Amino acid sequence: MNSDLLTFSQFKLERILNLSEEHKGAVCLASASSGQKALIFISKAAFKEETIQQLFQEGEIVKLHEVLQHNDKFFNFLAQCAPEFNPLFIKFIFPATQADIQKYTPVASIVIRETPDIYTNFTYPFIKSRSTEELIWLWNILDGNAEQDRILDRESDGQNGFVIIPDIKWDEQNMDGLYVLGIVERRDLQTLRDLCAEDIPLLQNMMERGLSAIEKHYSVSRSHILCYIHYIPSFMQLHIHLVGTGRRDFLAPRSILVDDIIENLKRDSSFYKDRAIMNLVLPENHMIVTQLDQKQHEKI
Amino acid sequence: MNSDLLTFSQFKLERILNLSEEHKGAVCLASASSGQKALIFISKAAFKEETIQQLFQEGEIVKLHEVLQHNDKFFNFLAQCAPEFNPLFIKFIFPATQADIQKYTPVASIVIRETPDIYTNFTYPFIKSRSTEELIWLWNILDGNAEQDRILDRESDGQNGFVIIPDIKWDEQNMDGLYVLGIVERRDLQTLRDLCAEDIPLLQNMMERGLSAIEKHYSVSRSHILCYIHYIPSFMQLHIHLVGTGRRDFLAPRSILVDDIIENLKRDSSFYKDRAIMNLVLPENHMIVTQLDQKQHEKI
Repeated sequence: MNSDLLTFSQFKLERILNLSEEHKGAVCLASASSGQKALIFISKAAFKEETIQQLFQEGEIVKLHEVLQHNDKFFNFLAQCAPEFNPLFIKFIFPATQADIQKYTPVASIVIRETPDIYTNFTYPFIKSRSTEELIWLWNILDGNAEQDRILDRESDGQNGFVIIPDIKWDEQNMDGLYVLGIVERRDLQTLRDLCAEDIPLLQNMMERGLSAIEKHYSVSRSHILCYIHYIPSFMQLHIHLVGTGRRDFLAPRSILVDDIIENLKRDSSFYKDRAIMNLVLPENHMIVTQLDQKQHEKI
Repeated sequence: MNSDLLTFSQFKLERILNLSEEHKGAVCLASASSGQKALIFISKAAFKEETIQQLFQEGEIVKLHEVLQHNDKFFNFLAQCAPEFNPLFIKFIFPATQADIQKYTPVASIVIRETPDIYTNFTYPFIKSRSTEELIWLWNILDGNAEQDRILDRESDGQNGFVIIPDIKWDEQNMDGLYVLGIVERRDLQTLRDLCAEDIPLLQNMMERGLSAIEKHYSVSRSHILCYIHYIPSFMQLHIHLVGTGRRDFLAPRSILVDDIIENLKRDSSFYKDRAIMNLVLPENHMIVTQLDQKQHEKI
């Protein structure tokens, strides 16, 4: 299919999969006359500085056409704006497979209190079941085969080695979105549950060197950075997140401060191995959730 | 000033205070010819279901006017849409005071590791310095003088009493945004730092009754709810937040699960009173931050 020919009129709306108030976007499932499916993502574009300046310079571009509320010094309007100053972004995935559709169909999340027992019997087997292929990009960094020019700092010591590198999702321009990773070289540390008191120097050194690298490369001081570990992480090789306090995506309870982890390990070396109850927020259809459910049914 | 007369052309843009990529909004500081200041908030409106349906029914409303990318089944377009389907919300605060302007001028946040000592010498005096006037709305609820028809459940027992009520910022319609509060009646419990093992039954009972009320009133099961306490809270009377797992605004490290709090109090009754290091993420110009800074300078 030629992209010139791809328009809304070719598709019939089947279902709105997601409507985001917060991000002003929508994900639509549609079908072509051929029966093939399309995923259509519509989102409002963010304002640009130039657009705002134009709106003020050429006052007539914005029409305040309805007063919604007025009380004392507070005025709310509904307004219209010339379309060229108010663009939309549209993405199509066409033809969309069943897997594409599933990926963008929201699934409710549920909360699991993971005891060490649940970790051993359900979470650990899940971690082991993950394909090592998803770590190839990371090993390429550690082994010197990719992204070497992006590395901010490196400690090359078999047992306590690590790499400090900006996260690929950060543009390195906007300091509000500052996002750097520290990735350990050892391959036996997969998650927080593998840590013990012996790993405190590694954590401290990686955090310290990460904070220094951020000060040096981006002139952002350490008091503006939060250092987190995710549990459970999205990839299974221990890493810390160093993020600007301006970011708004570090959700509780998944993000656990490295400082808190070190405190807990100092008090009790096997805190995470043997005692901690961790909180998992997982999609209802996640393997861990469905296996736990099955187990509970078997008991009854 | 008559609201009919309030248009962009009356104002000169002085400065863009905030431009949000995430929420597609902008906060502008502008001035009238009189010299008075205005805060002008511009934001894109979220899509409505009806709008999406119309976009598909009347294909010509959306013009896909520029192909940004095309690779295999992925197509990205920039598009225009008839302005009536793509409204803006505009808010004015006019005339804006210096306090209004300060409120909407973003301030970077910094991280403080609050030891019990810092709590006693800096955070507790800050809590005490807060005006009780900001709690009048809450006492109106507890004392039966306001919002009584909104209360979902109530335990009226001097020592262990509480009220369960939907948070005012939730519309009670969209279950993704589910947000309910449990507020204790006792006035000696202000924050997490005041809790000891004796308060476990109060916490458990309030959480249990909150979860039951949510199941009964909104048919949302307890496995889809997270129960948090904020530290430090925005108002100083102990309360728990019961929120849907679909909400994306429960940021670490401010939000601490009630289940984790109970575990910690079981292990050590004075954990929060005497031992815990809590994490404060505060604006750089917050009273606690500036006083801590001053103290550190005095030491040197």
